[in-house]
Amino acid sequence: MTNADAIYDASTDNKPASCSAPTCAPITREPLSEQSAQQLAKTLKALADPTRLRLLSIIGAHQGGEVCACDLTGPVGLSQPTVSHHLKILVDAGLISRDKRGVWAYYAVIPDSLEAIAAVLTARRLEPA
Amino acid sequence: MTNADAIYDASTDNKPASCSAPTCAPITREPLSEQSAQQLAKTLKALADPTRLRLLSIIGAHQGGEVCACDLTGPVGLSQPTVSHHLKILVDAGLISRDKRGVWAYYAVIPDSLEAIAAVLTARRLEPA
Repeated sequence: MTNADAIYDASTDNKPASCSAPTCAPITREPLSEQSAQQLAKTLKALADPTRLRLLSIIGAHQGGEVCACDLTGPVGLSQPTVSHHLKILVDAGLISRDKRGVWAYYAVIPDSLEAIAAVLTARRLEPA
Repeated sequence: MTNADAIYDASTDNKPASCSAPTCAPITREPLSEQSAQQLAKTLKALADPTRLRLLSIIGAHQGGEVCACDLTGPVGLSQPTVSHHLKILVDAGLISRDKRGVWAYYAVIPDSLEAIAAVLTARRLEPA
């Protein structure tokens, strides 16, 4: 048994603590159930938009890891209501967190959420960089 | 510089040979360009459907790695034309390959395609299982 088997074997309880995706077993390891496929598709739909990918990327690449909503309209060239709409979809999908402080909301990527999706897509083992 | 930096640093030509995603730099390492975001969103849209995720999973988990189209309608409970429609989207997105032999087409997951998407989503290093 490889380390990857130890992590992903559905017959054990050795799933990583970071596992927040619908299923932690890579989708090419065993056929996805209908329910898992629906949950994973929902998360991927939240990701599958160019503006949301750019917002996620800008937030994730930002030094300090947290970005004010007021600093996100400029880089994507869209209005505050449109940006807020996309941010809400990312928050609802569990991909970013939102912290309201005073007038503005501050957003940060929830790192394990992206890593859990990556782990589901590939049978390869994820190791810290 | 970590190994991951060596793999992903956009300033070098050390991108892995398997890199077929729109960008090989993790989206949280540096902000995605508009063009890269559009290409990545297109691939994720192809993935973001429960039936396509199940088809991809069934094909990927199949012993031998190749599945006849005739064996895919039963597991997902859909008609042959509907299954063919979804398979075409996965082929067009570069996620599975199609090999017509005689009456039937045979499908196989292109492993590096999923791994490239996973690498873009996470800053962690992917290692063989």
